[in-house]
Amino acid sequence: MEVIASPTEMQRWSERARHRGDTIAFVPTMGFLHEGHLTLMREGRKRASVLASSLFVNPTQFGPSEDFARYPRNFEGDCAMMRTVPVDVLFAPEPDAMYPQGSQTFVEAIEVTKGLCGDHRPGHFRGVTTVVAKLFNIVKPHVALFGEKDYQQLRAIERMVKDLNFDLEIVPVATVREADGLAMSSRNAYLKPEEREKALSLHRALKAAGACFRAGAREPDQLVRAARAVLESASGVRIEYVEAVDAATLEPLPTIDRPVVVAIAAYVGTTRLIDNLVLGRSA
Amino acid sequence: MEVIASPTEMQRWSERARHRGDTIAFVPTMGFLHEGHLTLMREGRKRASVLASSLFVNPTQFGPSEDFARYPRNFEGDCAMMRTVPVDVLFAPEPDAMYPQGSQTFVEAIEVTKGLCGDHRPGHFRGVTTVVAKLFNIVKPHVALFGEKDYQQLRAIERMVKDLNFDLEIVPVATVREADGLAMSSRNAYLKPEEREKALSLHRALKAAGACFRAGAREPDQLVRAARAVLESASGVRIEYVEAVDAATLEPLPTIDRPVVVAIAAYVGTTRLIDNLVLGRSA
Repeated sequence: MEVIASPTEMQRWSERARHRGDTIAFVPTMGFLHEGHLTLMREGRKRASVLASSLFVNPTQFGPSEDFARYPRNFEGDCAMMRTVPVDVLFAPEPDAMYPQGSQTFVEAIEVTKGLCGDHRPGHFRGVTTVVAKLFNIVKPHVALFGEKDYQQLRAIERMVKDLNFDLEIVPVATVREADGLAMSSRNAYLKPEEREKALSLHRALKAAGACFRAGAREPDQLVRAARAVLESASGVRIEYVEAVDAATLEPLPTIDRPVVVAIAAYVGTTRLIDNLVLGRSA
Repeated sequence: MEVIASPTEMQRWSERARHRGDTIAFVPTMGFLHEGHLTLMREGRKRASVLASSLFVNPTQFGPSEDFARYPRNFEGDCAMMRTVPVDVLFAPEPDAMYPQGSQTFVEAIEVTKGLCGDHRPGHFRGVTTVVAKLFNIVKPHVALFGEKDYQQLRAIERMVKDLNFDLEIVPVATVREADGLAMSSRNAYLKPEEREKALSLHRALKAAGACFRAGAREPDQLVRAARAVLESASGVRIEYVEAVDAATLEPLPTIDRPVVVAIAAYVGTTRLIDNLVLGRSA
């Protein structure tokens, strides 16, 4: 696996690959890899002739009171896991190379980043779409893969790609879960042993909303109430939001006549967790 | 000259050209071409193996009270002029193809679009950087050429290209003027015969600022006052702004210890004209 730190060197690598006739799949990450990342990478392997990944804990998508400084890092371990896939090239820049002095340009998808995490993490999605636009211009992929776990991020990036005419395909990949249902996340590493069990209540709440939907409920509020009831009965879980919105646009739905996503953000101790479930989707 | 209306067809054209080993120079325009555009195109011809241009009167960079509806158009005449260069491929999309329903993503360079036109045309530069980002992703040029006449636009696009890691070179080209000094602009077509002479006062004002600089003035205000004096003595000219700022960042300068741009926007009748002059630059 080649490791490249310089944006311009990465561009040259990708230009050479493209000129050879290779196609490039790309999985951007913030590192501290888990099975969810590896699933994205294995899917990427199937969809292109070369596989690129990136490892960059992007400071501009963290709020001032968020966990940028303590975000878990394990560069050597991540590289070892990438080699098992295998990843062909890893782009791992320093922050100064990504944001040299004077940087001041932002990419923002407006409507799709309202509500859900957008309301609770001001500036977060602007940081995400900006860094992903940069990474797309640096890695030049034909296809890029994102997990459905970060649902609003996925939809914002899809929107940006359409709106700015990025010539690449976004492939969403289903959330990978632990055996007991907990959605995999690098932030699960923050959970103390006694919090690990409480964290399951997010998945249980989503299952309750799903049962409610299958029982015939077609008002978003009914799903939200079913999910909230589970979360509120779990001690030590503080709800940030529970919403049920249009799965494509993330806009409010008066009645569920199209796919709906039930999305949760909640704190277990000091750890913020998110999870979601799409209902009414044919695929 | 091939004419392409579809963004995805244009992308395929450019991919084929790149794969053949061609390099692409690109001159985006809003049409109603004049010698300034042709100079950009001829310079583009020299810098790459194929030359692309675009013709798109971008609605999102016009304010609600501006001249989008009456902006001069002459598609056949423009095509004929492009063939003389010659341009190899013209991308000429309809607005619906550029902004399909649901479009909501914007690209914004923050600091460089403060002051000058940025203060007087809210949303203008956001519209410009967004459409240029789209055009870059559609036309995929190696080099793109912009005139210094639209000075703040040029600097905003340079900033965007750096900040978002677009893998292309921006080439600025000096303003092309009529024999009497009037900066060429599609909007000069709005000028009535009696206004044409008054419009010269912008260039005269810049020359006065230049004389003041060469006489040793090193305070931006001195240059502004010299330019204002000329404009204020011309009847029928209404000043929108006269500023003298850092030619690279467009930030205020306490003293002229680096290249400075003197920039003017003024109305002659109902026609808004802009012009500028860079002083203290070695090249």
